[in-house]
Amino acid sequence: MKMKEIQLASRPEGVPSHANFNFIEGDSQAPQEGEVLTKTLYLSVDPYMRGRMRQEKSYAAPYELNETIVGGVVSEVIESNSQKFQKGDIVVGMQKWATYQVAHESQLQKVNPSIAPISTALGILGMTGLTAYFGLLDIGQPQEGETVVVSGAAGAVGMVVGQIAKIKGAKVVGIAGSQEKLDYLLNELHFDAAINYKSEHFATELSNACEDGIDVYFENVGGEVSDEVFKHLNVNARIPVCGAISAYNLQEDIGPRIQTTLIKNRVLMKGFLVSDYIQRAEEGIMQLAQWLTQGRLKYEETIIEGFENTPEAFIGLFKGTNLGKLLVKVAEPSIK
Amino acid sequence: MKMKEIQLASRPEGVPSHANFNFIEGDSQAPQEGEVLTKTLYLSVDPYMRGRMRQEKSYAAPYELNETIVGGVVSEVIESNSQKFQKGDIVVGMQKWATYQVAHESQLQKVNPSIAPISTALGILGMTGLTAYFGLLDIGQPQEGETVVVSGAAGAVGMVVGQIAKIKGAKVVGIAGSQEKLDYLLNELHFDAAINYKSEHFATELSNACEDGIDVYFENVGGEVSDEVFKHLNVNARIPVCGAISAYNLQEDIGPRIQTTLIKNRVLMKGFLVSDYIQRAEEGIMQLAQWLTQGRLKYEETIIEGFENTPEAFIGLFKGTNLGKLLVKVAEPSIK
Repeated sequence: MKMKEIQLASRPEGVPSHANFNFIEGDSQAPQEGEVLTKTLYLSVDPYMRGRMRQEKSYAAPYELNETIVGGVVSEVIESNSQKFQKGDIVVGMQKWATYQVAHESQLQKVNPSIAPISTALGILGMTGLTAYFGLLDIGQPQEGETVVVSGAAGAVGMVVGQIAKIKGAKVVGIAGSQEKLDYLLNELHFDAAINYKSEHFATELSNACEDGIDVYFENVGGEVSDEVFKHLNVNARIPVCGAISAYNLQEDIGPRIQTTLIKNRVLMKGFLVSDYIQRAEEGIMQLAQWLTQGRLKYEETIIEGFENTPEAFIGLFKGTNLGKLLVKVAEPSIK
Repeated sequence: MKMKEIQLASRPEGVPSHANFNFIEGDSQAPQEGEVLTKTLYLSVDPYMRGRMRQEKSYAAPYELNETIVGGVVSEVIESNSQKFQKGDIVVGMQKWATYQVAHESQLQKVNPSIAPISTALGILGMTGLTAYFGLLDIGQPQEGETVVVSGAAGAVGMVVGQIAKIKGAKVVGIAGSQEKLDYLLNELHFDAAINYKSEHFATELSNACEDGIDVYFENVGGEVSDEVFKHLNVNARIPVCGAISAYNLQEDIGPRIQTTLIKNRVLMKGFLVSDYIQRAEEGIMQLAQWLTQGRLKYEETIIEGFENTPEAFIGLFKGTNLGKLLVKVAEPSIK
C-alpha cells in the first residue's frame, strides 16, 4: 500500500518551521502475526512534542533525525493479523505520522464510536482529558468554594480543567489570549472569569478576578503570565505543573525564582505526566465519558484537514490560534 | 527590674547592619495573674527573621519599627504568678529580645534540663530539629539507597537533615561554604560527600558526588547553588523548600524558571514552615531526643556571648560563619 510519512528533518531553533519536516513516500509492510495494518484517520499535534524535537532527553527520548515522528493517532484497522482487532475496528495509540502503517496489537486500544465521535479518543476521552482529570484532581484537589486559575484555558487541556473544577464547586478563572477565547470560556463553559494575558491591564484584571487569592493554579504556560499568578497564591495552594508552552521554544527561561513564594505560602508544586496515571486511565475515561453524556462537560476541536497540513497545524500550536484540541483529519473511516 | 531590649530601628536594605537595631533600657513589669517574669538565658537568631524585617507581609506579620524584636528564647522563671510554672523553671518560647520580660504562661513550654543542655531547646530539640525532621521525613521521604542533597548543610537545620537522612539509609551529600565545614560534615557527621559551593569546580564536584542523580533535595539556600542542583534531579524527586537564604537580602531573585524541570522529572516541590507541624511537635521531639541519647544524632552550636552582641550575631548569619545553631548567650541560670 502506498503511504506517506513525515520525518523530522532538522531540530527546530525557536519556533518550528516547515523546513524542520520532511515528507517521504513509500510502501507499507504487510502485518505479521499479532500486527495490524491501519489507515490513519486523525493525528494529534501536542505541545509536548516540541520537547522531543530537542537533542537532549526530555521525559521521553528525543525524536531521531530522519525518522518518522510519533504521536497520538486514531486509525482504522484495514487488515488484521491479530486476535485482538478486526478489520473495521477504530483504534487509538501512539503511532507514526503516516497515512498507513503496521502496528503491533499491544500498541493500540479499541475506540468505542458509540459514546462520542472517534476524534475524542485523542482529546477529552484520551490523553488530553486524562491529563486534566488527574492533574487537577490528584495534585490540585480543588475544594468547593476555592479559587482555581487555569492558564492556557481555551486549550485542549485547559478547558477540561476548568469544567472539572466547576463540577467540583470551585470558582474558576481562565487565562487565554484572545477575546474569542474569553467569550467561549465565559458563555459556553460558564467560567466565573476569563482574562486576556495580552491585555495591558492583565495584572489588575487578574487581581480583581482573584480577590480571595488562588488555591489551585493549573500551570500550562509558564513565563511572565505565571509569575503574575504566583503573586496571588493562598496559604496551602497547589500547583499541578502540566506544561510551560511559553518556554518550549526558548533557549533560556529566566524569571523570578520560586522558592520564597513556596515557603511564604507553603505551596505545593508538582510536575506530572499523564503516563504517571496509566494504571488509573480506565477510571478517568469512565468518569469523563459519564460527565460528557450527562452534558456536564463540553469539548471543542479545531480540525485541520489533510495530512500535508500536519506541520502547519503543529506550528500553529505555538501561535495559540486553536480553540480546544488541535487535530489533523487525514481520512474518513471506510465504514461510517 | 532594670532591663534592656532591642528594637527594629529601620528596615534593612540588603544585608542588615547595626544601624537597623536600637538598644533601649527600661523597667520590666510585674507579672499579672497567669504570667511570669523571666530572665533571658539564650536568644536564637534565625534566617527567617530577616523576612519579618521587610515591610510586606511574609508568612508572619512584619516586625513593627520601634518595637522589640521577637524570636526564640530560652529563659528562667524568676517570679511566677502562674500555676503552670515555678520559680527556677527553664522555659522556651517566642519572646522578646530583652534581658528580662513578662510573659503569659500560654506562650511558654517547660524545658527538661536532664535530657540535654537547655540551649538545645532552641536547636536540635526545638524549632531547628523539628524543621529538619518534618521537612525531610514528611515531604522529602528519603528511602534507603536514595541520594539526598542538603544545602546549608553545616547550618543548624542542614546538619540535622543530613544525619536523619543517614539514619534512614540514604546517601547524603552536603553543600557548604568552607573547608572547615566540609571537614566537619565528612569527619564528624559521616556524610558521604561534602562540596564547597564556592569552589570553581562546584558543578563538576556536585555531578560526581551525585552520579545516581538526586532523589531528595532539602532546600535551604536557593539561588545559583540550587539552580545547579536542579540539573541532577531524578524522576519523582522531592524538594522540601525550607529556606532560600541567598535571596533574603535581595530585592529581586532572578534565575531559571523551574516549571520545565518539574515536568520533565515529575518533581514535587513544597514550601513548609515548622509551625505547619505544631500538632506533631511532641512526636518529633521525642524521636530527636531518642536519637540524641542513643548517640545517633550530633549537634553543634556557635554561641556568641553577651546580649549586646545580638545584632552582630544576626548579621553573621548572612556571612555563613556559623557552624550549626547560632545562639546568643545572655546570662547563666541562677540555679545550675
